[in-house]
Amino acid sequence: MTFATVSPAPLADLDTASLREAHSAFARAYDELKGAGLKLDLTRGKPSAEQLDLSNDLLHLPDGRFRDAAGTDLRNYGGATGLPELRSIFADALRVPVDQLLALGNSSLTLMHDTIAFALLHGVPGGELPWASQSVSFLAPVPGYDRHFTIVERFGIRLIPVPMDENGPDIAAVASLLETDDSIRGMFCVPVYSNPTGAIYSEEVVRALVSLPAAPDFRLIWDNAYAVHHLTDERPQPIDVLALAAEAGNPDRPLVFASTSKVTYPGSGVSFFGASPANVEWMLHHLSAQSIGPDKINQLRHAELLKDADGLAAHMEKHRAIMAPKFAAVDSVFRDRLAPWGAGSWALPSGGYFVSLDIADGAAKRAVQLAKEAGIAVTPAGATFPYGDDPRDANIRIAPTFPPLAELATALDGLCTAILLASAETLLADRD
Amino acid sequence: MTFATVSPAPLADLDTASLREAHSAFARAYDELKGAGLKLDLTRGKPSAEQLDLSNDLLHLPDGRFRDAAGTDLRNYGGATGLPELRSIFADALRVPVDQLLALGNSSLTLMHDTIAFALLHGVPGGELPWASQSVSFLAPVPGYDRHFTIVERFGIRLIPVPMDENGPDIAAVASLLETDDSIRGMFCVPVYSNPTGAIYSEEVVRALVSLPAAPDFRLIWDNAYAVHHLTDERPQPIDVLALAAEAGNPDRPLVFASTSKVTYPGSGVSFFGASPANVEWMLHHLSAQSIGPDKINQLRHAELLKDADGLAAHMEKHRAIMAPKFAAVDSVFRDRLAPWGAGSWALPSGGYFVSLDIADGAAKRAVQLAKEAGIAVTPAGATFPYGDDPRDANIRIAPTFPPLAELATALDGLCTAILLASAETLLADRD
Repeated sequence: MTFATVSPAPLADLDTASLREAHSAFARAYDELKGAGLKLDLTRGKPSAEQLDLSNDLLHLPDGRFRDAAGTDLRNYGGATGLPELRSIFADALRVPVDQLLALGNSSLTLMHDTIAFALLHGVPGGELPWASQSVSFLAPVPGYDRHFTIVERFGIRLIPVPMDENGPDIAAVASLLETDDSIRGMFCVPVYSNPTGAIYSEEVVRALVSLPAAPDFRLIWDNAYAVHHLTDERPQPIDVLALAAEAGNPDRPLVFASTSKVTYPGSGVSFFGASPANVEWMLHHLSAQSIGPDKINQLRHAELLKDADGLAAHMEKHRAIMAPKFAAVDSVFRDRLAPWGAGSWALPSGGYFVSLDIADGAAKRAVQLAKEAGIAVTPAGATFPYGDDPRDANIRIAPTFPPLAELATALDGLCTAILLASAETLLADRD
Repeated sequence: MTFATVSPAPLADLDTASLREAHSAFARAYDELKGAGLKLDLTRGKPSAEQLDLSNDLLHLPDGRFRDAAGTDLRNYGGATGLPELRSIFADALRVPVDQLLALGNSSLTLMHDTIAFALLHGVPGGELPWASQSVSFLAPVPGYDRHFTIVERFGIRLIPVPMDENGPDIAAVASLLETDDSIRGMFCVPVYSNPTGAIYSEEVVRALVSLPAAPDFRLIWDNAYAVHHLTDERPQPIDVLALAAEAGNPDRPLVFASTSKVTYPGSGVSFFGASPANVEWMLHHLSAQSIGPDKINQLRHAELLKDADGLAAHMEKHRAIMAPKFAAVDSVFRDRLAPWGAGSWALPSGGYFVSLDIADGAAKRAVQLAKEAGIAVTPAGATFPYGDDPRDANIRIAPTFPPLAELATALDGLCTAILLASAETLLADRD
């Protein structure tokens, strides 16, 4: 695609005539794109078929075996805490002692949902009342994860956005909110390779989060979804949030969640819950009314596939080999297509599943709409903010893992065409 | 074991001297039993290892396959309604149209728990308010299932006992309670081979339950746990509770639950939810915040194991072949040991997992305690009543499926010794 008439320059710096010219060129490129009849999907953080293939031994494991190391028949009821062998494999990566780490059902989203439902109906250790009997708010670092927001929005919990930077949530903002608003009972945190910015919480930020004065039943929903999902050799030192919280005198504040959804198969994996002894006891008490034990055969299947912590790390390297070129493609296409026009800012993450792209204020919804009309599905603009409301209408979440590399490049190129057109439109409208 | 000195006769009819003599004989037998150092378990309705072996193909299925009939890759996120092929296999047995039958997680107990949690937090179709904002009661047919009671007891829902007879709950009692108590929002029902009496709800009873005037958000928690768990050739005609409810103008009243826990593996199976279109939509809406889809690979595994409705029926016949002799042993030991002393009444069920035994009023707790001290674990007396409170202290639930047949006979014989001693003690105390 060429734009012969205008030399690329930051769109905002162009004089109106040049901006009009650029707009016309983008509009022609967009018409061409629409004519191509694409049907491509960048919406969700889903592993590709090639990644799923890495775990295909799950399709015949445990190969007739059904006992754990202690000799227990895993085919029957029971085993509320989950298979010890599998908990051991993940304990180190999640920095949760095996005794305080439960291996449970197929989804950490379900666990987070149910944890908040238990808190609403029963309260949590340290709290005097069930949350449902009070006015409850949560802090939501933004941009963030739409499925987190959905859980609490559905429960009628008020979400208060807190800005993210490259070291995690803005601690001054968190401190001031905690000080002035006594309805705050929870906060969503994706501490490693945050969804969608890829930010890694610094130790300083984590120490602040576990130390700041807050209600005794305030909980950090510590969604460590991407703890082992590295894309480079730079590995963040895992932070032991439970130890730091205990040190700060708030042992019950963090609730750690994780799963194998993006290690093995989404939907057919295993979730984990790690917390202080008091929180683990609380969780087991409420689980005892809800379940007679998790799918321990599936846990055995996973323990046999991954073998040990080294096996887990080796398995994740195979994911990286498939994923890293896709993230590189995002960076490359954005550099080629957006950077010359000053039409986007993004940071290539060193792990996780997303790239967070900021474009011209007021252009994101329009860009996503244009992409959609050209057959390229992107996460709805605004989804990374509570109530779907991005006050700047600037953030777009890119999920590059699912399509094969060739399709991904086509989709990204088309998305850039839509973004350029939307940006030029928005800037022109501002000048009217 | 012999009781040379007293001829067996109903204990209650013996004169006090003879009762004392019987008591001494029972006490000697009990001392002998304690000396034997048994360690046997009749507590829970668990399949035996031999039954679990019937499903061992699950330990290598789906043998590398991962697509449904429509070609969808089941390894990834999605598929909220569950695998159509598996839903088809169970639709007929459960009398729920495939479109209204969801295949979900590993436990119907979890589904029932979550359904009630959703109702508490959000309300149900037809209701104006979430249940948590009202005073809510449930009807509990007794004797009934302790895990049902636990769910609602934990939620602070009041349980109102309703007596069961051989055709289901006492409809006159249900009608009168519904008429006079407007806090009633739910009722637990195990319509086929009820836990623990084995009663099968008659069509007349079902018609009454779906027709009686009640609150618009009144729900029947229709736990069809034993729909295909027959022990004889006498098969109850499956009752289409959804159709009868629709016919009665109350289509949203029944919520049907079932699972493969006692078809394949407890804990590693699949649960089902069937209801009116409005209720299914309601459930899917709330599930959409909780989950990105069930374990569809495990559903495929189950579909491949069971194949079709005939395959399911054939599989259940193999369970019957293992289980029926154990139920016959219960009947035989009780006839030999309890009947001559008039010390127990029970009905041999034609399906399900339990035998409900009534002994002398006031003797059940003591009998279970004596059995426990002799190394025979039995479900705590009272467990079949809300709050663990059997007002007559007479009911004991026998779960004969788990131990091998030889152990079962030993355990039952020991239990009878404990029951006879407890009964004689109780009767003697009454005469003091």
